[in-house]
Amino acid sequence: MALIVAKFGGTSVASPERIKMVALRLIRMKQAGDHPVAVVSAMGKTTDELVGLAKALSNNPPAREMDRLLSTGEQVSMTLLAMAIEAMGHRAMSFTGRQAGIFTDTEHSKAKITLVHAGRITGAVADGIIPVIAGFQGVDKDEDVTTLGRGGSDTTAVAVAYGIGADVCEIYSDVDGVYSADPRVAPRARKLDVVNYDDMLELSSSGAGVLQSRAVEFARKYGVVIHSRSAFSDAPGTLVKEADPEMEQAVITGIAHDTSEVKVTIRDAQDRPGIAARVFSALANNNVNVDMIIQNISEDGRTDISFTCPAADLGRASGTIEGILEKVGAREYSVDENIAKVSVVGTGMKSTPGVTGRAFSALADNNVNILLISTSPIRLSVVVSADQGELAVRCLHTAFGLDSESIFEEKMLSAEELAAKKSKGR
Amino acid sequence: MALIVAKFGGTSVASPERIKMVALRLIRMKQAGDHPVAVVSAMGKTTDELVGLAKALSNNPPAREMDRLLSTGEQVSMTLLAMAIEAMGHRAMSFTGRQAGIFTDTEHSKAKITLVHAGRITGAVADGIIPVIAGFQGVDKDEDVTTLGRGGSDTTAVAVAYGIGADVCEIYSDVDGVYSADPRVAPRARKLDVVNYDDMLELSSSGAGVLQSRAVEFARKYGVVIHSRSAFSDAPGTLVKEADPEMEQAVITGIAHDTSEVKVTIRDAQDRPGIAARVFSALANNNVNVDMIIQNISEDGRTDISFTCPAADLGRASGTIEGILEKVGAREYSVDENIAKVSVVGTGMKSTPGVTGRAFSALADNNVNILLISTSPIRLSVVVSADQGELAVRCLHTAFGLDSESIFEEKMLSAEELAAKKSKGR
Repeated sequence: MALIVAKFGGTSVASPERIKMVALRLIRMKQAGDHPVAVVSAMGKTTDELVGLAKALSNNPPAREMDRLLSTGEQVSMTLLAMAIEAMGHRAMSFTGRQAGIFTDTEHSKAKITLVHAGRITGAVADGIIPVIAGFQGVDKDEDVTTLGRGGSDTTAVAVAYGIGADVCEIYSDVDGVYSADPRVAPRARKLDVVNYDDMLELSSSGAGVLQSRAVEFARKYGVVIHSRSAFSDAPGTLVKEADPEMEQAVITGIAHDTSEVKVTIRDAQDRPGIAARVFSALANNNVNVDMIIQNISEDGRTDISFTCPAADLGRASGTIEGILEKVGAREYSVDENIAKVSVVGTGMKSTPGVTGRAFSALADNNVNILLISTSPIRLSVVVSADQGELAVRCLHTAFGLDSESIFEEKMLSAEELAAKKSKGR
Repeated sequence: MALIVAKFGGTSVASPERIKMVALRLIRMKQAGDHPVAVVSAMGKTTDELVGLAKALSNNPPAREMDRLLSTGEQVSMTLLAMAIEAMGHRAMSFTGRQAGIFTDTEHSKAKITLVHAGRITGAVADGIIPVIAGFQGVDKDEDVTTLGRGGSDTTAVAVAYGIGADVCEIYSDVDGVYSADPRVAPRARKLDVVNYDDMLELSSSGAGVLQSRAVEFARKYGVVIHSRSAFSDAPGTLVKEADPEMEQAVITGIAHDTSEVKVTIRDAQDRPGIAARVFSALANNNVNVDMIIQNISEDGRTDISFTCPAADLGRASGTIEGILEKVGAREYSVDENIAKVSVVGTGMKSTPGVTGRAFSALADNNVNILLISTSPIRLSVVVSADQGELAVRCLHTAFGLDSESIFEEKMLSAEELAAKKSKGR
């Protein structure tokens, strides 16, 4: 008899038919003796449609209004799911972020949860009711609705799981767990049974889309066990939890890749103290999320500075660089939009020398040209040209012994499931 | 410099283009030195679409969930209008019913306002902000969203006007005021400059759709002046306010008609005490809204009982009558769906004898056959067959001297406006 938070994404509640499937799953959980608490995203493309309406009226909609507007999407899906459960003869009640006790700071569109006061949810569960909570939203001290940013519903689910002391936070999506690499790219990728928080956080922030890194961060901080699993099957997925010291860790957990960044290079900047600070303060002031930074060896007092950032930030990044090019004494700058970042992730890396060497050898053997390198204690990332990205994933996956014996497509997925995966992204 | 509540219905905010027009109107008010406070309905067909989604999931959706679901419609339009105003360089903020301080009882789908605590709205106005309030909704003591029933946004507007002490509550719609009759039916109908609360209440509850009777009731109770006017022009509309004792009242203010009711007749029921009570208690218990009741003169201890009710209640009415037919000793019942109720309304009726006679003569002169009659101190209603309804409106309009000198269509409306009226209803 477990207390279970079950989060369903937009695809899982995209239509009345799918909402009924989710309702059935929750009822089955209840019939099995568990206590489910649902968290839902907005239906399918609702959020995009609302953004479209806002853009028709304003180039720069006030963040407070935008948050309230977007929050209606989850409020629609939560009421519909509650209705579906009631129509099947079980008790359900919907709760907004406010009603579920999700309090945040005032940073509209990317609010951080400051307090979870889930007494009303606990009370509903005690009364035999299945609570259905709107993901992605909370309220600030003025009771104004705030939203938690991209993937915020995962964060809501983890926060609620913490707030009610749930045994597990199940995140249902259209993939059946966390893989050692994206199976669309690496057919021999394996589903992982368990991943520790640190590895999951690096995988998520390096492009593995299955779980949002903020949710993983929250789970790590408060020790919430996440179960990432498929909305379309009953097969167990991947548990994300504290590393078990008893268990031997693989050196490398998985290979992530990310094609959503671009590379910007400032050529022949002056190589003197303060130049990098000037460049990257200016970028930060203009809300450019800089990821990797590389400064080449100086020649004749001149140097090249490269950085990567999300493609969505490129406009702001270019504007910033144009504005300071002269001030840093640089000649010109260039942009490379055709790049892929490939990351080797594993907590075991810390205690195992030679990972870097093995990675570079594997890439060299396959004639993959490395453009940039960055590392953390448990991650090694390389930027390569976009057309070599998938080859890089596959050869690193093989080099670190992650390949399963059979090819993924044949073993794990029906043709239909694979098509669904290909169209929806990991 | 007036404090003005301005309510815009679903048609006025049906698209981004129309929302911009509303934004411009509010800004013009502000530039003229007034303080506008907007109240909005949901965009166009939004409410119908949400109802459709709910029906796809449940035949009998829980009222609490339904209210929350429907309340999102107004929350979308309020944020979009606030964004539009801000995009035009003026300050605006949206407020839900809760945030505007609209507290209600717990009667979901037809909640009554119990308290208006509009301090946040007053504060916004003082800060130079144009508040935009979601109509149709409040919260109950559990902070669960409630809705105010059909036309509830008018009631919100009047309640807010009362709460902030506004000088006037402007209700914008696609008609330019209250008319002495529906101009589609009576081409010589005149727009009324002023109507007192009592007359307006009788007109609204007798089929004149321009203002919701609950809003008029609220306005009468708290002395809020309503200005019913067109969203598409700047021409003054109709003021609804306390009767001015100094001013001479016309005997008759207007003719209303209503084709949304049906007539049910129970034949040959026993004519003994308690029979009528039995019939109408049973109907009330089944939520049938009975309007007019007529019991014919008894013959041989037997009588016919007729009543009218909204066509929407007919299924429940028939079921009720079938269940008690034998108990009241009746032979059979019949239903007439082709009826029209035509009402002559005027406070002046109280002090002027002969209204009934003049009405019946006018109808007789035009060969209109009266099926049922009911009266109040300031209203005389007749039910006639549907095909004689419009004729009845016209001849009563003439008989009571309400005709204007020129024909309405030629004088007041462009062809386009008339087409809009015909397609949208009064």
